[in-house]
Amino acid sequence: MEPVSVPGGITAAGGFRAAGVSARIKNQKKDIALIYSECPATAAGTFTTNRVKAAPLLVTMPRVASGSAQAIIANSGNANACNGPGGIGDALLMARETARALNLPEEMVLVASTGVIGQPMPMDRILPGIGKAVAELSREGGQDAAEAIMTTDTALKECAVSFDLAGKRATVGGIAKGSGMIHPNMATMLCFITTDAAVSPGCLQKCLKKVVDKTFNMITVDRETSTNDMVLLLANGLAGNTVINKDGPEMDAFAAALEAVCGVLARAIARDGEGASHMIEVEVRGARTLEDARLAARSVAGSNLVKAAVHGADANWGRIMCAAGYSGAGFDPGKVDVFLGSEQVVAAGSRVDYSEDRAREAFLAPVVRIVIDLGDGAHSATAWGCDLTEDYVRINGSYRS
Amino acid sequence: MEPVSVPGGITAAGGFRAAGVSARIKNQKKDIALIYSECPATAAGTFTTNRVKAAPLLVTMPRVASGSAQAIIANSGNANACNGPGGIGDALLMARETARALNLPEEMVLVASTGVIGQPMPMDRILPGIGKAVAELSREGGQDAAEAIMTTDTALKECAVSFDLAGKRATVGGIAKGSGMIHPNMATMLCFITTDAAVSPGCLQKCLKKVVDKTFNMITVDRETSTNDMVLLLANGLAGNTVINKDGPEMDAFAAALEAVCGVLARAIARDGEGASHMIEVEVRGARTLEDARLAARSVAGSNLVKAAVHGADANWGRIMCAAGYSGAGFDPGKVDVFLGSEQVVAAGSRVDYSEDRAREAFLAPVVRIVIDLGDGAHSATAWGCDLTEDYVRINGSYRS
Repeated sequence: MEPVSVPGGITAAGGFRAAGVSARIKNQKKDIALIYSECPATAAGTFTTNRVKAAPLLVTMPRVASGSAQAIIANSGNANACNGPGGIGDALLMARETARALNLPEEMVLVASTGVIGQPMPMDRILPGIGKAVAELSREGGQDAAEAIMTTDTALKECAVSFDLAGKRATVGGIAKGSGMIHPNMATMLCFITTDAAVSPGCLQKCLKKVVDKTFNMITVDRETSTNDMVLLLANGLAGNTVINKDGPEMDAFAAALEAVCGVLARAIARDGEGASHMIEVEVRGARTLEDARLAARSVAGSNLVKAAVHGADANWGRIMCAAGYSGAGFDPGKVDVFLGSEQVVAAGSRVDYSEDRAREAFLAPVVRIVIDLGDGAHSATAWGCDLTEDYVRINGSYRS
Repeated sequence: MEPVSVPGGITAAGGFRAAGVSARIKNQKKDIALIYSECPATAAGTFTTNRVKAAPLLVTMPRVASGSAQAIIANSGNANACNGPGGIGDALLMARETARALNLPEEMVLVASTGVIGQPMPMDRILPGIGKAVAELSREGGQDAAEAIMTTDTALKECAVSFDLAGKRATVGGIAKGSGMIHPNMATMLCFITTDAAVSPGCLQKCLKKVVDKTFNMITVDRETSTNDMVLLLANGLAGNTVINKDGPEMDAFAAALEAVCGVLARAIARDGEGASHMIEVEVRGARTLEDARLAARSVAGSNLVKAAVHGADANWGRIMCAAGYSGAGFDPGKVDVFLGSEQVVAAGSRVDYSEDRAREAFLAPVVRIVIDLGDGAHSATAWGCDLTEDYVRINGSYRS
């Protein structure tokens, strides 16, 4: 049975509560998100490969590695990156205050931040904010939490699905935020996922890594891999299924549900890229290896020139060939076919007669679909990005003001 | 003795003539450039690493490998890329027509193109254009040739220096064009260089590669490595020096002159990046290896977010740390110092007290200077880029129209 969409986002799965409140880190908007599981949960995570890692990652990574957690405390408006030892102290303090208020061991709390780099954390406002979030925890708080992690996002990003797990109904739900500095690498922007499925720590981590590689690691807004990227997944087992601890039909069902949620959230981030007016979906087929397919798809989706061409509805497909060519993917240019929407523009590496009007129409669609068939193998991959607009430049010329 | 600047560009060196004419490939602008040496010259070149290579590169690369050439024929307005076997036929035909009119063996002519990808070459206009260029060859034609290779460039790019070679006066001169799809990799955009120094083929190629790695390979406008990049260098030996065929003072003098010319042209390309209003110069010091220094410098110079911050005069240095962090360079974030102009903003990886006004002033300078000291070694490198503006988006939303 396919996973089916359900409401509730991060609190859709049994036993999870959430809250989103304003601690006035940034004016009056919600900026503190808290996610809590009624019982200890198995934890998994993927983190940025950026060598400069924000303080909350340094606190959270070893805790996730230990395999269990019960709460996630996150703030927007300040990345808590490049703040030195004081920043790490602040991240630890956020976890400690959350643990105290929830009566949990400190190590069961994971910490995340997003916002401007290199600004001191206003702990005098954040600590009371945490108390407020704990007081407001509820089964209905998922949407508030989703709102509290937004920065330049224009749309709230949440998603949940239910699925059958050997006769038990299980649920996976998540929230995420974009929308600039997006080029995840073995990690992603902030994304928190909960499930009531019971999964062993090893299987949970393996499954998350695999799904993230196909979803969050295949989106790009600006080829900027952030210092704060993380995906956290808590599995509290309240669905009552036998613990999934090996490959098999249950693992497949869980992975499909997880991929459904991550796919929706990843595409939502790409669609809501800073200043974007179109989503770009690049499918590469016929690659020699999965890695080749991914490299080529992501390179085309991330190309400034392809993105600007989409924005201008100028079906300049030479830029697609160029971006595939410098991607590092191995292929024979003489075998490549390219389609813009359903209009073929390149066959065997060269221009074909095509309708400029229909090609242009493909670039005017809300989701611009580009298919590149390398004609050289059986592997395929899809990447998602967005167009490059004057608004991206404007937003990022004055992000701090 | 340091190389000294002289006029004449590509025809400054003894025995070289050039021309630039209009063949109406693109309206009435000059679009055919011809460079000719009175006698056979030693040839060297570096070419794009893009897997999709334009037809003229496929023709020119083996000819350069043979080590000698006497003329370069180039057009703008059409890249002759992704045109299939017909494109290669057209590139060969351009060389053949040039050779016929100059009475040279066909293999002594090198071919280059720049412009839109995937458009048929208007050979009916190009071939007469070649005849016209041959007729107009002159010692004063350097500037016309420089003009004829321009596409979206707003400024003509030429440079020449004279220097002493064991008592003989020698000259190196060159022309180049930008200004989008600029992220050279072991290659560059179109750049042609001539010299009357006598240098063996092996030494010439080795020296060119080394200089290109420090100059053209350290600039970036939009992280797009083109299908058509090439640097060609012709050395005709008319300066009368003993042939340079090994390392030593003569080789050093020649390399310094070549680096002076390539440096000026490379920086001119960065400064004239599409839509740019500021040049960005990023120096990385204290790196463990030269490769680490280059990776970090180029990553920061190429970051969309750093470029947009410069455009908006928002001294958001966190983006500099972020771009260094994802560059692939090895370093310890806790040892990094960052300076914007002369204002230090980061010490040992964390924010220091600094003047926001002075930091902002550094971003308002015509050349924005960013210094990153990794504090971890003795290697350094400098990269050049430009800011990201609304105009870049506008220019590239309608490049073909």
